[in-house]
Formats: sequence, C-alpha cells, structure tokens
Amino acid sequence: MADRILMFILDGVGDRAVRELDNKTPLQVADTPNLDHFAKIGENGLMDTIAPGIRPGSDTGHLALLGYDPYEVYTGRGPFEAAGAGLSLEAEDVAFRCNFATLKDGKVVDRRAGRIKEGRGELTEAIQKIKLDVDFEFKDTVEHRAVLMLKGEGLDGEVSDVDPHEKNVAFHEAVPLEDTKENKRTAKILNEFTEKCVEVLSNHPVNKEREERGKAPANVILPRGGGKVPHLEDIRSKHGLDAGAISGITLVRGVCSLAGMDIIDVEGATGGLDTDVDAVVSSCIDALEKHEFVLVNIKGCDLSGHDGLPEQKIDFIEKIDSSLEPLRGLEDTYVAITGDHSTPVTVKGHSGDPLPITIWGKDVRRDEVAEFNEISCSRGGLHRIRGEDVLNILKDLADRAEKFGA
Amino acid sequence: MADRILMFILDGVGDRAVRELDNKTPLQVADTPNLDHFAKIGENGLMDTIAPGIRPGSDTGHLALLGYDPYEVYTGRGPFEAAGAGLSLEAEDVAFRCNFATLKDGKVVDRRAGRIKEGRGELTEAIQKIKLDVDFEFKDTVEHRAVLMLKGEGLDGEVSDVDPHEKNVAFHEAVPLEDTKENKRTAKILNEFTEKCVEVLSNHPVNKEREERGKAPANVILPRGGGKVPHLEDIRSKHGLDAGAISGITLVRGVCSLAGMDIIDVEGATGGLDTDVDAVVSSCIDALEKHEFVLVNIKGCDLSGHDGLPEQKIDFIEKIDSSLEPLRGLEDTYVAITGDHSTPVTVKGHSGDPLPITIWGKDVRRDEVAEFNEISCSRGGLHRIRGEDVLNILKDLADRAEKFGA
Repeated sequence: MADRILMFILDGVGDRAVRELDNKTPLQVADTPNLDHFAKIGENGLMDTIAPGIRPGSDTGHLALLGYDPYEVYTGRGPFEAAGAGLSLEAEDVAFRCNFATLKDGKVVDRRAGRIKEGRGELTEAIQKIKLDVDFEFKDTVEHRAVLMLKGEGLDGEVSDVDPHEKNVAFHEAVPLEDTKENKRTAKILNEFTEKCVEVLSNHPVNKEREERGKAPANVILPRGGGKVPHLEDIRSKHGLDAGAISGITLVRGVCSLAGMDIIDVEGATGGLDTDVDAVVSSCIDALEKHEFVLVNIKGCDLSGHDGLPEQKIDFIEKIDSSLEPLRGLEDTYVAITGDHSTPVTVKGHSGDPLPITIWGKDVRRDEVAEFNEISCSRGGLHRIRGEDVLNILKDLADRAEKFGA
Repeated sequence: MADRILMFILDGVGDRAVRELDNKTPLQVADTPNLDHFAKIGENGLMDTIAPGIRPGSDTGHLALLGYDPYEVYTGRGPFEAAGAGLSLEAEDVAFRCNFATLKDGKVVDRRAGRIKEGRGELTEAIQKIKLDVDFEFKDTVEHRAVLMLKGEGLDGEVSDVDPHEKNVAFHEAVPLEDTKENKRTAKILNEFTEKCVEVLSNHPVNKEREERGKAPANVILPRGGGKVPHLEDIRSKHGLDAGAISGITLVRGVCSLAGMDIIDVEGATGGLDTDVDAVVSSCIDALEKHEFVLVNIKGCDLSGHDGLPEQKIDFIEKIDSSLEPLRGLEDTYVAITGDHSTPVTVKGHSGDPLPITIWGKDVRRDEVAEFNEISCSRGGLHRIRGEDVLNILKDLADRAEKFGA
C-alpha cells in the first residue's frame, strides 16, 4: 500500500535577521528539539511558496502548496472566505468579504461596528430578507466579519470595494474594474444591496439597543474583495488523494474546501496564540488513519509576525515544537514541515522570504542539516524548491506519483 | 576548435536512504575512486531530470537531457522502441510495441510465448506477408518482443492496447481513446492485424514444432503503447552538434536515433549487469574522435534498483567506476556524469528523487565536493539544476553556445 502524506504548515514562521536577537531569526533562537530532530533525519531546504521575492497571501500560498497555479486560478479572497464559512459555492457565483460597520451622518465612523459580537444573528436574518435581482446568501462569521454571495449567471467579480478602507469618509459606490456587462450588473446589485442593508439595519431593534447602551450600531454592511468562485480541479482527480485539512482559519479552510478536501474540526484549535497544538497534532494523527493526505495549518507565528513581537514568536514556536513529539511515532507517512509565507517581525506583514522546509520519512535521503531554521535548512539537500514542488515530492516519496514515460 | 562534449548516463543510479546501509545510499557506500576524482576536479550538484518530484521514464528522461521538452514532444513509448529496433520512421507513422504471445481457447495463456527465441525470424516473415489497408513494418527485437509500425497518413496513436496485460483472459479489441477519424481507422486496422496474425501464426510450422516439443506456441501478436512518431528537431539544427549515442537499451537507442544521433554499436554492451563497461568506455573515447557530442547510457544500476538489491547496485556501481579510469585521459572534452532518473532499491521503480551530477573539464569551476553521491553533490556549486539545463551548460563550457543578445 502506498504511504500517507502530511503537510504541516507553520503559518508565517519564516523571518529575517532581527537586531535585538543578535541578527538571528526567531527560529534560530527558539529551542526546538523536535523540529531539529526531524531536520536531522530528513532532507532540508528553502521553499519559495510562489517565487523568489513574491509575497504570498495565505490563500495564494496554500493554493501553491496544493499544486494549483495561483496566477491561473486565483480570483480574490471572497470566495475562499465564503467557502471557509461553510457557504456552498457554485461555479458562476460571486463572493465578497463583508464587515458590519457603523455609519453616522453619511460617514463610516467605525469599520468594525465596535467589533460587534451580540445580535449579529438577528441582523443577519434581517439582511437575508432583502429582495435583490439575484439570489444571494449572507452569513456572519467572526465578530464584525461576514460573507456575501451573489448567485447565478451573468455576474462577475471585478468590481471595486464598497468598503472605503478608512474611517470618517462615505462608503464607496461599487464600480466595474473591467468594463463588462457582468461586472456592471454585479456593481449595480452590490450597491443596491448596500443601500437596502442601511435601510433594514438603521432602525433594527438590535442597533437601537446598542445605541442606547453607547455601543456603535452595526448599521451598514461594507463588501470588499469580490471574486468569482474559482474553478479548482478536485484534489482527488488532480493528485489522486483523498485529503483532509485542519485549520482554525476561515480563509485556509476555504481554500482546502474548494480544493475538495474534508475540513476537520478540532476542539481548541482557535487559530490564535491560545490554540491547543496538542489537540491539533492528535487530530492530525487520527486524520492520517482516514485520509491519504492531511494538511495542517497552525496560525500563531503569523500573528506575532504581524504584531512585530520576536519574543512572542519564539515562545509560540517553542509551544508548537513541544507538541510535535507524537509525530516521531508516525509510520508509513512522509511529512513536510514548512510555512505558507514568511511574516517577519521586522516587516509586520507577509514577505517573500523563502521558508525553511524539512521532509522526512523512512527512506528520505539524510543530509547534514541538524537544525530547523532559515539558515541551517538553506544548506540542505533540497536546495531551493517552490511551493508547487512540495506535494509532487511528497507524492513521489509515498509512491503515489505516476511515471511520466516508460 | 571548440571542445567535445560527453554525457555519461548511469541509468537509475540515484537512490534513497537504505536502512540496511545505515541510512546511506548505494552511491554513498560504494567505493568509487574515479567518480570521486571527477567530483573533486569538477563542479557538482543535483539534477531533476524533468522537475522536482516528477518520475521520469527512460524515454522522457533522455528527451529532457537532450534538451527536448517531453511534455511537448512525447507521444508514447512505441515510436522510440521502433526507432531503436532500426525501423525507419516517418512523421505520420504510428508505432506499437508488441509481444509474441500464446493463445489457447480464446485466452492469452502466456504473454511472452515462453520467452520464444528460435523461429522468430520465420514467424516474422509470415506476418510481414499479411495484407492490410495500409503499409506496415513488423520486426522482432529481443526474445518475445517486437515492434509494429503502421505507415502513411490518416492514422493516429491514441488507441487502446490489444495486450490485456494479464493472462487467462481474451486479448482486447483496440478502441479509440480519443474519438477521431484517424484513431478509429487505426484501431480498426490494428484489430484486423491481430486477427490476421492469429490466422497465419496458428498453423505455422514453427508453432507446430513448438507444440510438439511442449513449448508455448507464439500464435498471437499483442500490440500495446501506440504512439504517433513524434517530431523531434534534429540535434544538428537544435544544438549544432554532430552526435553519437552508445546504449544497450532499445528504448534509449530509439530516443537518440529519432533525435538524429548516430547509434554506435559496442560489442559486449548488453544493457545487462554483464555488460562490458570497459568496451563501452573505450568505444566512447573513440566516438569522441568522430562526434562533437557523445551520449553513453549504462543500464545496470536501474536493474538492481528495480529488483530492490542494494548490494548488487553497489557492486555494479563499483564495476562501472573501475572502468572509468580511461576518462581521466580525455582532453579537450567536457564531461557530465549523472543519471536519467533515480531507481531506489526501496522503491523498486523509477522515482522523482534528483540525481547527483558532476561536470568537469579543463576550466570548470572546482567546488569543494570530493565524493560523487546524492548527499555530497548536493553541496556543490551547480546547486539544483534540471535535465534541460545539462546540455546547455556543457555546450557553454565547450564554447559551442551562441550568445543571446549583443
């Protein structure tokens, strides 16, 4: 029987030389006996998720790691957020990310409506009753976040954001970014949706009550990041793999879901720094019983990178490492540990710096690398590969690759 | 005068960490003073014949090493086998690999007709007298193997195999794999050919005699692996090289032949573990007098890999190495030693693991690598290159590359 494949993604783990760490990276400073063990028994290298110097998003990064060409298939974040929120997408649909926001005297005064938690369900129900020229779905997700999906033919996703991305200005009128009939129609419907949201939300009891209690009312919805649902070839036909994914992040769940992977829920996997990595690792090992290929995404490092906190990033790396011990017991499995992009604390955002990668399994060539970090791994036998190569290499190792030729 | 180029291909030489070799590869364990010498005076690296994780065939692998894009030109194994067997192919022809096989009560009971050796010539003559709607050539090659070529326009190679690939079942009717007029016509002719072969072979004296002696009669021909002759730009125009090839393997001879290389016969070069490597090396040195570029393929390591025999692979590597001494005396020649694909003993088949490569010649940069194996070479100055790069690098070294630009 062919072997199993595990891709373990440490979101944003890559970093740069940090002055206060004596010009080392957080991975170099962190004490990581398990990661170092895997580097020792495996083959190591650097991995450009998309290409050298290209800054991946978490969506395009995961697409590349699953072997899709993001330049070919990517249509925007909206559809992945919608899929990750559990909406059922069809090929012609157009999806948007949305915020509940606060409008006062025609201006957006809070883009997050005071990070509204209570009452979102009732507001969502009111929005769902709106009548538009097309069918649509609207769903609130986390805090002020929501997704909107316009359904049916004759629509497209190249329309500008209603969200002004700054406060104390009016929200924008959506306009077509490419002058097509479909984009014009979509922009018109989106503007109609926004106006009707203002109508139904402004006098909604939930908002009346919020105002009475001095909270920002959620009296407008601001769509952004529109995109037509991309066509991703199902991972079963593309790679011949029955696959599962574990991630606390809606966007990553959406990418994996649209690729045809089963989304596995793990209690305590929050996507935050408080996430239960032990539970994730345990579920991952269980999932490998059922699935030929499992992808795990652990978010924390990315958060510390965005916040520019090297010590916090080091602590979280050590937290992950201490939970990886059970992976030492995996049998008949080839494992890659890497990231989807770097999030250097010096950048406070995603960067195009390549990621360290280690691949191990029973007969993987052993190079002389003994530590898992950006500098040690760069001396390894994998050299510098690309995101699109990773799953091909793992399939080849696990004897799941077809020979091309005779 | 520009210098000569030698590409020395150790078929299937790459391997993985083998547990019984203390997690080393056969190349790491083998005692290879000559290969190590070349590594020391040369530049080393890893080479993905096609791309990371992609498992090459010997045909697609050699195509890539000769600078052809196998994704563009490859049409199947048949035409290369036919060319390697010495049939003269034209652009519109369709070629098939065939087996002499044994039919009993409508079922294929032996796909190899008892590995028939004697009498093949007479059976072949009988087959050659068959009348079909098209011209065809049929030629027996080694043991039960043969090639069939349907000649002329209006044919195509996307038809299913007549060979059922298992015994005790009926042979298959060829059907078009793509529904075109040409494929339909080819399938019809192929089925007619098979039926007529049964007619002429069933009562053939050679088979009567075989049956009397208790041997399996060769009373059916089973075509498979059809493909239209690919268009390969002649290596003279593509690379400006007058080229020769030495290989004991029909498939490799076919690739080189269709690329326009002279096929050089070497007595004792069997393609087996018993091959006379001294004779091959000696012929190779002679061939470099006549040809600007010589490709040598030595098969043995691939056989040990397929059979999963690490010690045999080590022995054969040492046998090759001991015969390479005369290459030290080459002058005005740039040499690359590598493989066409890995055939790890742990996989018992081709794999996508990259190959070690060493390139040397009078002014080649010398890196610090001192041993020819997968791990040492990975630390070399060539880093990780692709098959398509190898001949370009050699042409550049030999001052046979054209400048692109001014």
